[in-house]
Amino acid sequence: MKIITIGREFGSGGRELGKRLADALGIPCYDKEIINEVAKTQGIVPERVERISESDIHLLYPATIGHSFISPFYYEGSDVQILVSQQEVIKKLSHNGDCVIIGRGADVILKDMHPFNIFVYADTQSKLARCLEHADAGETEKEILRQMKRIDRNRASSRKFLTDSRWGDKEAYDLCINTSNMSIKDIVPSLADLIRKVR
Amino acid sequence: MKIITIGREFGSGGRELGKRLADALGIPCYDKEIINEVAKTQGIVPERVERISESDIHLLYPATIGHSFISPFYYEGSDVQILVSQQEVIKKLSHNGDCVIIGRGADVILKDMHPFNIFVYADTQSKLARCLEHADAGETEKEILRQMKRIDRNRASSRKFLTDSRWGDKEAYDLCINTSNMSIKDIVPSLADLIRKVR
Repeated sequence: MKIITIGREFGSGGRELGKRLADALGIPCYDKEIINEVAKTQGIVPERVERISESDIHLLYPATIGHSFISPFYYEGSDVQILVSQQEVIKKLSHNGDCVIIGRGADVILKDMHPFNIFVYADTQSKLARCLEHADAGETEKEILRQMKRIDRNRASSRKFLTDSRWGDKEAYDLCINTSNMSIKDIVPSLADLIRKVR
Repeated sequence: MKIITIGREFGSGGRELGKRLADALGIPCYDKEIINEVAKTQGIVPERVERISESDIHLLYPATIGHSFISPFYYEGSDVQILVSQQEVIKKLSHNGDCVIIGRGADVILKDMHPFNIFVYADTQSKLARCLEHADAGETEKEILRQMKRIDRNRASSRKFLTDSRWGDKEAYDLCINTSNMSIKDIVPSLADLIRKVR
């Protein structure tokens, strides 16, 4: 079984890389699917799951008592319970077979399955250029840079909740790819080939 | 022109990866060749170049005055002059055409040529296993671990002398490869393919 997880800096093209990689390998890519599945099982709107998923987990769950979810914040329908449900959805999806999973700490959540963990990053200039391509009309560089900072900070913070290894520290990943000077589309076939050779 | 530089943790298989990659791409790999060329131009034995190349550069050159080599330590035949000569040899070799260069800060020395920079690393257990395979009879695990630590510390220290980017920090590299769970031999063909697609 081959599970591939994609950690990524905001704007680095990690989602595109994950989707193209899944296509090249002929396996599913789970991204928004996770959000939708959590929303369905919890009977809430996907937007709420997405908002929680992108928040600073320590704000949702301020009284950290170890890494346990047994706390006053863990009640039916609470933000924390939605995150727990997200972990369960990720585990369930991974049992369906080979797949690519974008973000959401899947490398840590599924570590017993020994996934192949990729981290995608880039320099600020190149991330900004990529974001501007997909930006809403009127969105300024300054706003994008602020959003970039906030989302990556929250990702790092959420990871701390799951593990001692730090978000983006290369030691936690099998491969780290700097997309600053690469065309993701061009490199994916060789990358898929490389992953086929591993394990 | 394609210059590929390989930074690596001691025992991670970086040298093997570099050599195999050069073979796959049909280009030369410069490693000991650099040492020999420096020895020849300086009229000294290769062992001295090697010793200097693996030393803590700050011990060779204690009175750091900026990043300049104009100092009382820079005289004909001094350790520091040998390092300067090494930089010149690296630059000269790079002008011969496409190549792979192992270590020696080549990514920084050649940065104006925009090399493709790879960093090879692995977890301690896997580096130790690799070193034990090639160890001299009687060499203990403890000795290898001490050597590993010393050499990597010197590499990090030498890098500080050349640049503000830290040795092993992923931001300075295009690709970081964790060889803990990979067969270098198996992945090199796809890696060579990936590099052909870049730039």
